[in-house]
Amino acid sequence: MRNLKLTLSYDGTSFHGWQLQPGVRTLQGELERAIGNILDHEITTHGSGRTDAGVHAQGQVAHFLTEKAIDTDAFHRSVNALLPPEIRVTSVEEMPLDFHARASARAKTYEYHVWRSTVVSPFHSRYVHSIWQHLDPDTVDQATRYFPGRHEFTSFSAAATSKKSHTREVYEAQWERSSEEWVFRIRANGFLQYMVRTIVGTLIEVGRGKLNPEEIPGIFEARDRQRAGPTVPAKGLHLVSVEY
Amino acid sequence: MRNLKLTLSYDGTSFHGWQLQPGVRTLQGELERAIGNILDHEITTHGSGRTDAGVHAQGQVAHFLTEKAIDTDAFHRSVNALLPPEIRVTSVEEMPLDFHARASARAKTYEYHVWRSTVVSPFHSRYVHSIWQHLDPDTVDQATRYFPGRHEFTSFSAAATSKKSHTREVYEAQWERSSEEWVFRIRANGFLQYMVRTIVGTLIEVGRGKLNPEEIPGIFEARDRQRAGPTVPAKGLHLVSVEY
Repeated sequence: MRNLKLTLSYDGTSFHGWQLQPGVRTLQGELERAIGNILDHEITTHGSGRTDAGVHAQGQVAHFLTEKAIDTDAFHRSVNALLPPEIRVTSVEEMPLDFHARASARAKTYEYHVWRSTVVSPFHSRYVHSIWQHLDPDTVDQATRYFPGRHEFTSFSAAATSKKSHTREVYEAQWERSSEEWVFRIRANGFLQYMVRTIVGTLIEVGRGKLNPEEIPGIFEARDRQRAGPTVPAKGLHLVSVEY
Repeated sequence: MRNLKLTLSYDGTSFHGWQLQPGVRTLQGELERAIGNILDHEITTHGSGRTDAGVHAQGQVAHFLTEKAIDTDAFHRSVNALLPPEIRVTSVEEMPLDFHARASARAKTYEYHVWRSTVVSPFHSRYVHSIWQHLDPDTVDQATRYFPGRHEFTSFSAAATSKKSHTREVYEAQWERSSEEWVFRIRANGFLQYMVRTIVGTLIEVGRGKLNPEEIPGIFEARDRQRAGPTVPAKGLHLVSVEY
């Protein structure tokens, strides 16, 4: 038995998210179809996590098991030849059998791209959320400082979730700004559904003056999704990397 | 009468080129529909030139005439609200009546993007032509040095063309290289159809060792399209700017 780790980059615009679903185009579905064609048997891939419809990735990771002998370089070329150009496998590595793309992950990094110029470049419009109104960078940064550390993220995730624990540890959360874009970068030991998009939506409310930075601790304590800001659109979100 | 100059950026992937054609989606067609809706009368736009199907632009220029009074800022916002996100008007300026986007143009700059890494990023695949085989940068640069200056470009343009003169003056032609991309940048007083794509196709043949740099002058002299290299695909071509 062999355990293959794939690193993936994808433009999520035209996919119904990562997870395999019958009758719709998903990233997992396309990947399993391509690999199945090469190996001539059905396989199941396990992603580091499910990205939602419209979310992009520069460094998603998945693994699968096969009995077949695989030349990783030849497999790498073949799988990219069979995948649509919106999905690229950027690396293929054989791993020990106990490696699991989801269970072995120690940290993930996401970016959220907010376009700040009035005209959104047509070469970026699928990958950014555009907000041209004034946002105060100082209050946004003040509010952002409450996120690193170990917190209960119920207020900042999908209202209905199946996860037992809502506690996650954020290692890093910060904004990088250019004249065209504000990019929010967050690294944590794990993420709940909609967590990054709800954190960003809340920080945008702070930047607009609708929330004060000092209200963030109270929102954490409330454990109530209604207290946080709106969930910003999927298209600005990018899974940058997964660490093992 | 007012004369409005528009600067445009577009992702040409899903358009049948610049020029208005009945029954298909063209850049000129989308632009005239949007402007017509704002002004409530039909207008004709004049582009600096026709970009072919699949060609992109960061700085295409067009003008149109109208009797209506126009607030350029309000018009700018309205036209972008009515255009699809693949086309953006990046500036609107009122010009003297004798300004003509094509006739007044003094120089244009195009770039051609050749992707050099084995895996093409899904965020760039629509905007580059991928060549992963070895290309010799030194012979390509030697051949490129024959292009600046005043030349007869019959060998380097569409076999059938309606233009009276095939003489153009190239002010600049050079390659910029990174680990992922080779970018060819060419600035001239004008371009014939397929001219940039045929020059690049010929330089690629040199890089592959199928032509010697010293053969370029003979190809110019032959005035025979058959002597030059193939026309590379439209998707790597970008109209960067038009100078007046």
